[in-house]
Amino acid sequence: MNFSLIFYIIGWSLNADAAFMLPPVLVSLIYGESIRALLLSALICLICGITLTCRRPANRYFTLKESYLTAALTWIILSLGGMLPFLLSGSITSPVNALFESVSGFTTTGASILADVEAVPHGILFWRSMTHWIGGMGVLVFLIAIIPLFGGSKMNLMKAESPGPSVTRILPTAKESAGVLYRIYIFMTLLQTVLLAAGGMPLFDALTITLGTAGTGGFGVLNDSCASYSIYAQIVITVFMILFSINFNTYFYLIRRKWKDAFSIEEVRWYLILIAAATGIIAFGIRERCASAGQAVQQAAFQVASIISSTGFSTADFATWPVLACEILIFLMLVGACSGSTGGGFKICRLLVLVKTLRRELLQYVYPGSIRPVRMDGKKASDTVVHSIHVFLGAYVMIFTASVLLISICDSPDFLTGFTAVAATLSNIGPGLGEVGPTGNFSGFSAFSRIVLIFDMLAGRLEFFPLLLLFSPAAWRRF
Amino acid sequence: MNFSLIFYIIGWSLNADAAFMLPPVLVSLIYGESIRALLLSALICLICGITLTCRRPANRYFTLKESYLTAALTWIILSLGGMLPFLLSGSITSPVNALFESVSGFTTTGASILADVEAVPHGILFWRSMTHWIGGMGVLVFLIAIIPLFGGSKMNLMKAESPGPSVTRILPTAKESAGVLYRIYIFMTLLQTVLLAAGGMPLFDALTITLGTAGTGGFGVLNDSCASYSIYAQIVITVFMILFSINFNTYFYLIRRKWKDAFSIEEVRWYLILIAAATGIIAFGIRERCASAGQAVQQAAFQVASIISSTGFSTADFATWPVLACEILIFLMLVGACSGSTGGGFKICRLLVLVKTLRRELLQYVYPGSIRPVRMDGKKASDTVVHSIHVFLGAYVMIFTASVLLISICDSPDFLTGFTAVAATLSNIGPGLGEVGPTGNFSGFSAFSRIVLIFDMLAGRLEFFPLLLLFSPAAWRRF
Repeated sequence: MNFSLIFYIIGWSLNADAAFMLPPVLVSLIYGESIRALLLSALICLICGITLTCRRPANRYFTLKESYLTAALTWIILSLGGMLPFLLSGSITSPVNALFESVSGFTTTGASILADVEAVPHGILFWRSMTHWIGGMGVLVFLIAIIPLFGGSKMNLMKAESPGPSVTRILPTAKESAGVLYRIYIFMTLLQTVLLAAGGMPLFDALTITLGTAGTGGFGVLNDSCASYSIYAQIVITVFMILFSINFNTYFYLIRRKWKDAFSIEEVRWYLILIAAATGIIAFGIRERCASAGQAVQQAAFQVASIISSTGFSTADFATWPVLACEILIFLMLVGACSGSTGGGFKICRLLVLVKTLRRELLQYVYPGSIRPVRMDGKKASDTVVHSIHVFLGAYVMIFTASVLLISICDSPDFLTGFTAVAATLSNIGPGLGEVGPTGNFSGFSAFSRIVLIFDMLAGRLEFFPLLLLFSPAAWRRF
Repeated sequence: MNFSLIFYIIGWSLNADAAFMLPPVLVSLIYGESIRALLLSALICLICGITLTCRRPANRYFTLKESYLTAALTWIILSLGGMLPFLLSGSITSPVNALFESVSGFTTTGASILADVEAVPHGILFWRSMTHWIGGMGVLVFLIAIIPLFGGSKMNLMKAESPGPSVTRILPTAKESAGVLYRIYIFMTLLQTVLLAAGGMPLFDALTITLGTAGTGGFGVLNDSCASYSIYAQIVITVFMILFSINFNTYFYLIRRKWKDAFSIEEVRWYLILIAAATGIIAFGIRERCASAGQAVQQAAFQVASIISSTGFSTADFATWPVLACEILIFLMLVGACSGSTGGGFKICRLLVLVKTLRRELLQYVYPGSIRPVRMDGKKASDTVVHSIHVFLGAYVMIFTASVLLISICDSPDFLTGFTAVAATLSNIGPGLGEVGPTGNFSGFSAFSRIVLIFDMLAGRLEFFPLLLLFSPAAWRRF
């Protein structure tokens, strides 16, 4: 095991953590708040980071296993660093709660244990939203993009952190790919901030809401999430929640003016169809609760986009919506966004492959012996990818079931609360239904259950295998 | 498409349906009830059956597709024939309800729309329990065993109806295998009846409860299911619920005195471990509600055996048990019994393969390039079987989700009711939780939802593909 390289990368991610704490310090200064907690946190991260990075590792080669373990460890250490501002500022006093909030931020879940967000200082809130932005595109992708880190094997590291069954090499090297992704990410973040601010939203809100949208996180800065923003702002947020949860290859093709490629990604097409269908059905269901048909569509579209993109903002208490609407939202929670985006969940392309394999299986009964490859975007999906998607489904169902049972040991959530609490954390959405609905929060759970849900958030963001490998004795056997 | 052979088999299954209605006629005579409904039903089935079987088909060869379509059609026609006694006796007046009860019987689900079972005549109740017994081992397996039907290709037909990912050829021919299975089935049925009657249970109850246990069905003849029977009777039922849901290969090996083979079936071992673990946890959870620790274990064991074997009898209103106990029962609902038994659900051996593939996938990260086959009972499971199990999981999740959404269109069940109503029908259990819990029934659902649940019961019993093929245009394209 190449421990020196693993520590080196963890060190750099702590340095990055420290650097990312500086914008929140600036916000604190503007609002005349104490900067002690944030500066101290940054300092602690920096000291640990520099200690780990002072010695450059001799061997810079990474095996697949080491990439996955590094990804898992990096995210855990990153979250431990990220909880410091909450603890040191006294905004959150319990360490488990602070870790929950930090993991929820980095994994872009947006599930909170804070009952009164508005009481938290601006600097800390800004840091809270910042974690979404960092976690959205991935901290390892960030490091690959900006730091001349390693010789080869960067692609494995990128793969370990990127959502989706396979990483398309959009450019020859991992460094170039990561750079392009981050440029697109920054451009869209700026665009949304400008559009929100232009509509009259206070700059602080525009910035934090944008950071939360970009990472498809969902931490808000008001107690009612997004309900009190203008219709214009809500529509802008709806559009950007969808944009950030679309496969980023689309934007890459658009930049390269490969129009045909950009609009022929099957996953994106089905994603938009699903959003439109769900919006239509839910709007019909809530038509009597709204002032007009237009309002029903707007409310439904906001919530559908928020849930399927795994953001988790809300403009209404959707837990009180009709049963069918709630169940469609639960379904969307499980399905999630596109691969290669900042969104979470099972991912549309995996669902497509499942449907296509099922169709193929049926055709095998009709035409036995015929060989029919599963095709995505016109290309044959390899058997390995198809198999890994099915294994992923198995892992998803098993971890889901185990989590629902585990959080019922110390707590007694009703079935809806328990089920959607796990769905909302494992798919990195944020709010569920029942007691963890848009008007509730996760503070009602015991420390044990919160640790289970912390595991789920990390497992969901890293798509299980890095985290499962961390707990697998076989992974540690041969050094 | 070999329609003449398909019709011929459907005809024979109608003849069998008619023959199976004669024991209930006898019961009616004993209790001095009207035998008109049962005789008329038998006559209708027989006339249709004889019409279809009078001409022997020239070509007796079956393709895989035709076997599956035959299985699906046979089960539908069988259920249509089986609903006649309910309708003609006036015990159930709505045709959808009568079909629901009949499908629930044949698929060994045991979900009922009857609120007051005790008001139904004995003959009809006996027929209702009889359907469990017929459906448990399978009507096609029955036909293969007793009627000199076809030349070759019987194995395909048996495969289409038998639960589990693969059918082990326990004897060289399908006819012999089917014969042995039915002999074991009949012997165990008689044994349980004798044991129950010896304990003082009225013969009628002993017979009907045994028929319901043997098929892992769960229709009772008292409104409180099994709660008012003696502790002795409850323990006998518990043991037999487990015995009937164990892979029947075990008994075959025992008969052949292959002791080592009998006790080395991995699926059975894990099945018993799961039952013991679930019983322990639930008994601990309900200890304060019971008079003694012994009673808690006995109650928990009954309910665990009843749910995991997919029978669905109850001795207590487990819907009022603690959250963890209820969630373990929901988990057991989904998991189900052993393959090659009369039980339903996802099946233990499929779960084992999923866990093993997940383990293998993790090891692939540690030792890339190594080839590690998935082993069951010491033998390598073929890639085709492993793949088909994963596709099965995909189908299960998709049909499950679609059903939960569909039954919420016309009805507004709470999430627990909707989720467990689908789980209880798709896994052929019977009672769920919430409004469809042990004290409730399925009569609250609209006709549309009941049709969805009828589909689920058939889909669960036939393990999806025969029924899906029936609705696949490709299957009908080439005649």
